[in-house]
Amino acid sequence: MPFNISKLKKLRELLAVNRVDLYLICNPLELRYFLDMEVEGILVVSQNKNYTYLITDGRYQHQLQNIENNNVRVVLANNGYLKGLSRLINRYQKGKKLGVEGTISLELYLKLKNEFKNLTSLFLIRELRMIKDREEITRIKKAVEITRTVINGIRNKAIGKQEKEIKAYLEYRIQSLGGDGSAFSPIVASGANSAYPHAYPRDKKISKFLLVDCGAKYRGYCADLTRMLFWDKIPKVIKRAYEVVIEAKQLALSLVKEGQVIKDVVTRVENYIKREGFKDNIYHGLGHGLGLEVHELPYINRYNTQKLRAGMVVTIEPGLYFPGVGGVRSEDVVVVEKNRGVVL
Amino acid sequence: MPFNISKLKKLRELLAVNRVDLYLICNPLELRYFLDMEVEGILVVSQNKNYTYLITDGRYQHQLQNIENNNVRVVLANNGYLKGLSRLINRYQKGKKLGVEGTISLELYLKLKNEFKNLTSLFLIRELRMIKDREEITRIKKAVEITRTVINGIRNKAIGKQEKEIKAYLEYRIQSLGGDGSAFSPIVASGANSAYPHAYPRDKKISKFLLVDCGAKYRGYCADLTRMLFWDKIPKVIKRAYEVVIEAKQLALSLVKEGQVIKDVVTRVENYIKREGFKDNIYHGLGHGLGLEVHELPYINRYNTQKLRAGMVVTIEPGLYFPGVGGVRSEDVVVVEKNRGVVL
Repeated sequence: MPFNISKLKKLRELLAVNRVDLYLICNPLELRYFLDMEVEGILVVSQNKNYTYLITDGRYQHQLQNIENNNVRVVLANNGYLKGLSRLINRYQKGKKLGVEGTISLELYLKLKNEFKNLTSLFLIRELRMIKDREEITRIKKAVEITRTVINGIRNKAIGKQEKEIKAYLEYRIQSLGGDGSAFSPIVASGANSAYPHAYPRDKKISKFLLVDCGAKYRGYCADLTRMLFWDKIPKVIKRAYEVVIEAKQLALSLVKEGQVIKDVVTRVENYIKREGFKDNIYHGLGHGLGLEVHELPYINRYNTQKLRAGMVVTIEPGLYFPGVGGVRSEDVVVVEKNRGVVL
Repeated sequence: MPFNISKLKKLRELLAVNRVDLYLICNPLELRYFLDMEVEGILVVSQNKNYTYLITDGRYQHQLQNIENNNVRVVLANNGYLKGLSRLINRYQKGKKLGVEGTISLELYLKLKNEFKNLTSLFLIRELRMIKDREEITRIKKAVEITRTVINGIRNKAIGKQEKEIKAYLEYRIQSLGGDGSAFSPIVASGANSAYPHAYPRDKKISKFLLVDCGAKYRGYCADLTRMLFWDKIPKVIKRAYEVVIEAKQLALSLVKEGQVIKDVVTRVENYIKREGFKDNIYHGLGHGLGLEVHELPYINRYNTQKLRAGMVVTIEPGLYFPGVGGVRSEDVVVVEKNRGVVL
């Protein structure tokens, strides 16, 4: 089913609450959210049920034929989406109140605002996207499964290979197992290189221990897992820090459930890490939402005062870093439910 | 040399012309343009030479140590870049005129504008990026060479394989040959699937003929090539359209040089295609600039009234599409010089 009616229904409810007559969706990721396909253009949704148009260009005209059957009308505007939009709005909805999703670029916003004075920016879809439906969770779960299999597949292969070779191999295997591709450029960092939370894979051969941070994309939805692989001669501090990171992750996962204030979860986990003596080795927050994007709302850090809600999908990824020596991180993906978190 | 002084010098000249005291650069691609590394944050450049700060977070603190030696001061702002920026500006540059590169998101712009009333958005870096320096052309050339080798490598392999398998293989080989990865998700479309300009690779086996649109990234810079592979039983219309596409590409390449008006080049090429009887089979423009992004300025279409300038790097990619039958496209990358275009 290419066109997601229930997501559209929720959006229309929000349009009513916000008294917006017509909503413009311009970001390809948000088009994917509703249409389940990759396309560029502007989706025009009216509060009134009879009105959903996709303004796009000739590159997509034939791929969009089965969307037309699902109550979306396709409008080709080869000399610019804005011109197509103006024609459409002047014909049907002149004077109505317009909204646009605020993830739009400044440039496009200024052009729209110049054309349509009664335009406001809102974050309705970003809010909707935070709570995943069953199909979305199924896809994330599949992406996580592919990622887990792919990382397990290098356990006996990585030692002595170049970090870059292993990175390329991970991306290849993701696709062999049915993934769309990588959700982000995998981090494959051995020894001291792992001390950089955002390390770049090098030509250098892997030895001692390895940090792998990798995620498949499956039908548009992202996974994000981090695993440590250990061989021999591991520095004592790395060994100890790994124990603390695993404990911290377990603690965080045990706290995940609907209603928890995000910063309280993070503070409890960071307090545990501090008590173990690693106060100065925390370089980043505890995690982030994921879905169509690998980083999306909610952010799991000590500043976020929001509560966890059922249907959110977030990562938990405590990490500790020791410049010149190395770093350890462990990351899982968890679905928030009413009374618990379910690790995917 | 991580920090590009000559690019910064050109930016400062533009700041003087536009009477901007302080310029904010927020987009990771633009940070890469100046710093030649992947980092998130805000780069603050003053017209006055003694002032360049990078506001970033703890994830990058140790990777940035050799940038500090190159006249960029690193400021860590773990509780938000905006707070770090406010502290910095209130300390040094209160009341000065601020500019920000207009590729910023609306959301970040509104937050900045709320804090700094004297803020204007400009497109200085996007203009600078259109004209490539020698190092940038060298990297694009290397990316094109990798891409050409990778596509040639499937000529005897692709028949009978799944489109998806070949896509995964292309991406793997790009990395084996030293590329960072794919500049975009490769299009591998056989038979009727090639009639979609933005076709998605399928599980289906490749037969008859194949359209491959693929690009390596090399040290941040993109390539973009399209090649047709033919085996047997090629529909007559495809064979004829391919001849026309190749002629059209040669015609376009012969017209590329400094001073040519872009829409005139496109019109001449499209007129040739129309005379050959394929007026209704053109679904997209003739090409686009490329560099750090696979699609950037200038766009090569019949609406662009700009002139080509020496140092621009653009694709030329005429394509013709026949729904239900297939499509043909051929694409090269060309550097604009004073008296000619040089195909990479």
